[in-house]
Amino acid sequence: MAGACPPGGPEDRAARVALTWLAEPGNRAVWTLVEQAGAPATLDRLLGGDIPDTRLRAAVAARSAAGDARRMAEIAMRRAERLGARLVVPSDDEWPRRVADLATLELDTGGRINADTRPPLCFWVRGSWPLGEALERSVAIIGARAATNYGIHVTGELASAISRNGWTVLSGGAFGIDAAAHRGALSAGGRTAAVLACGIDRPYPAGHTSLFDRIAESGLLVSEWPIGAEPLRHRFLIRNRVIAAATAGTVVVEAAARSGAAQTMNRVLALDRPAMVVPGPVTSAMSVGCHEILRNNPYARVVTCADEVLEEIGRIGEYYAEAPRGPERRHDHLDEETALVLETLPRNGSVTPERIAAEARLDLRTVLRRLSLLEIAGLVVRTADGVALAPAPGRKRHDAG
Amino acid sequence: MAGACPPGGPEDRAARVALTWLAEPGNRAVWTLVEQAGAPATLDRLLGGDIPDTRLRAAVAARSAAGDARRMAEIAMRRAERLGARLVVPSDDEWPRRVADLATLELDTGGRINADTRPPLCFWVRGSWPLGEALERSVAIIGARAATNYGIHVTGELASAISRNGWTVLSGGAFGIDAAAHRGALSAGGRTAAVLACGIDRPYPAGHTSLFDRIAESGLLVSEWPIGAEPLRHRFLIRNRVIAAATAGTVVVEAAARSGAAQTMNRVLALDRPAMVVPGPVTSAMSVGCHEILRNNPYARVVTCADEVLEEIGRIGEYYAEAPRGPERRHDHLDEETALVLETLPRNGSVTPERIAAEARLDLRTVLRRLSLLEIAGLVVRTADGVALAPAPGRKRHDAG
Repeated sequence: MAGACPPGGPEDRAARVALTWLAEPGNRAVWTLVEQAGAPATLDRLLGGDIPDTRLRAAVAARSAAGDARRMAEIAMRRAERLGARLVVPSDDEWPRRVADLATLELDTGGRINADTRPPLCFWVRGSWPLGEALERSVAIIGARAATNYGIHVTGELASAISRNGWTVLSGGAFGIDAAAHRGALSAGGRTAAVLACGIDRPYPAGHTSLFDRIAESGLLVSEWPIGAEPLRHRFLIRNRVIAAATAGTVVVEAAARSGAAQTMNRVLALDRPAMVVPGPVTSAMSVGCHEILRNNPYARVVTCADEVLEEIGRIGEYYAEAPRGPERRHDHLDEETALVLETLPRNGSVTPERIAAEARLDLRTVLRRLSLLEIAGLVVRTADGVALAPAPGRKRHDAG
Repeated sequence: MAGACPPGGPEDRAARVALTWLAEPGNRAVWTLVEQAGAPATLDRLLGGDIPDTRLRAAVAARSAAGDARRMAEIAMRRAERLGARLVVPSDDEWPRRVADLATLELDTGGRINADTRPPLCFWVRGSWPLGEALERSVAIIGARAATNYGIHVTGELASAISRNGWTVLSGGAFGIDAAAHRGALSAGGRTAAVLACGIDRPYPAGHTSLFDRIAESGLLVSEWPIGAEPLRHRFLIRNRVIAAATAGTVVVEAAARSGAAQTMNRVLALDRPAMVVPGPVTSAMSVGCHEILRNNPYARVVTCADEVLEEIGRIGEYYAEAPRGPERRHDHLDEETALVLETLPRNGSVTPERIAAEARLDLRTVLRRLSLLEIAGLVVRTADGVALAPAPGRKRHDAG
């Protein structure tokens, strides 16, 4: 880290904005450089043309030809101030904790590793609620723009019940399911956050201008892109990784075949978050994508009402809040089923989830869920042939796996 | 085995009928004795009162008080002959192979092992098709009696497509989904089998008398119970094990909460057969049971069409369900960079290649190459001051989700 430019200081903030203007958010090369050297030094290096990654070099050269990155960042920050929008960077108190998981997300998309999945460098935020607090207990509800009455109805019911339970309903601000999710939360007096794929000064779609204003009154408008950025097609895919990572779980209500929702769900599953799917009539084109996700992902779960969504995400939220510390107390804060799974694990060596299910007399899906929790908590590790107890602090173990 | 009474001979057949009259089919103690000593010796022993199992002793005593088992069997066999029905026993060529799997089926229903899951001792059959051949390539389609229009429609489509593919559609002959399954197969000129929970001389429900006649013309009516047996409530649960075991897989279309379908699916899963579930609207009471099965059984699989059912039950590679395709868009065939260039073009008016390069973060040479391709494809035209989108009917932008 460049000691002269402390993280969160004016230079760090301006550099992050300029970097986001130079390269799309999530860029692996940029993020890695920022992690290593800090944002200001990375910006110097990029503008100086010292860029090993050829694609990034070409992109930076093209952008630099169109304008000066530092100047653009300055303009964006002034315009944001006038709009009442603020910039949030990782060193800020309100930075959302969960997006850090994107640092290690690897998505193999047909042989080619998807590189654009790294954590955001900054967020632009409109709305007074602290971003981190808003996202800590949040559920994404996403789905088709061309939603049916069925999808709109179910989404509204889910969103209002979820927000009445004190959870933030997060979505993408689009027509259809997204809008029904935001409206459902608002109608219940709850809070909702829209994560946009363009500058937060650009209501996209324009028909949602007043909806976005209402969202910002009690909730938040959030974007990684600088003020003025256009909602280009590829940005929605980049944005979707934030929806997947920032929330405790994601629900898909309606989706057409081969939709963006399936892509978002891949990220949700890769991040070990609950991937929840609302089924629908098999005769409806708008449920084809939902059923596809369920057929293709054994870990995707059918949900039919808000209680089932809360059941999936609630335990994770509660669990995060009371992560057990010492090995001698590791069972104390666990729910009964999770404790049972943990007890069934052998002291040494690996075991398959199927074997745990048989031993603990739990169904396999429950076991897999509980194992995910235990893995997140660092109590269990995956091995070549199943799972094993993680080495407890201060205790040496020989992994038989 | 008692050598004096060869399996499949008149004494063996009559004894099996009498045993089914004395104790309900699937009875573990009776089946075990028959396996050890053959049916005639088992009948002798039961009628002699030498019964270690107390529940069975009480049942046999109660039945014996109501009539003579051998005499009842004789009457049933004479009546069956008049009806054109035949008795099929395990040593017959047409005995269905798969029901043997019931011999080792263990269902732990909340601590109590369910005892009534052993293979049938015999089947009564109406229809000329050999039973084993009919069931070898068969799929069960089951579901609610109080089915909705949605369930009836989906069942009809599934059953007719499955039977057109040369598979027997098997169901239980009840109102609702069962009837829709039989009718769907018949309407496609296919064959269907109804497995009843009463004597095959008793059309139950009575409203299905003519449907049963049509089923028997080209397909089969099948029952374990002797002619004259009543459709008692508990017999449906006993019958369900045969539906699960005799078929290559079972599809549930609609089911209410905590329905018999869930119980049948437990047997299907315990037998390692494909357990397939058609989802429906979460707002429909008739799909609650389907979603329940999916949520409780990680091995239950969502199916939405006949191809997906055939893929599950067919041999690997014999059927392969095509992934549903969304409407083809012009971007679908473009590489990432070309799509990006196309996205960057303004909806109206011209733009310079330099500007595109800056916006898309691509180098100018790449942009010029992509523009040439797009021009050849007729998607882009040259203008006095750069390039512009070619007019295209129904062109949509920003349609990524």
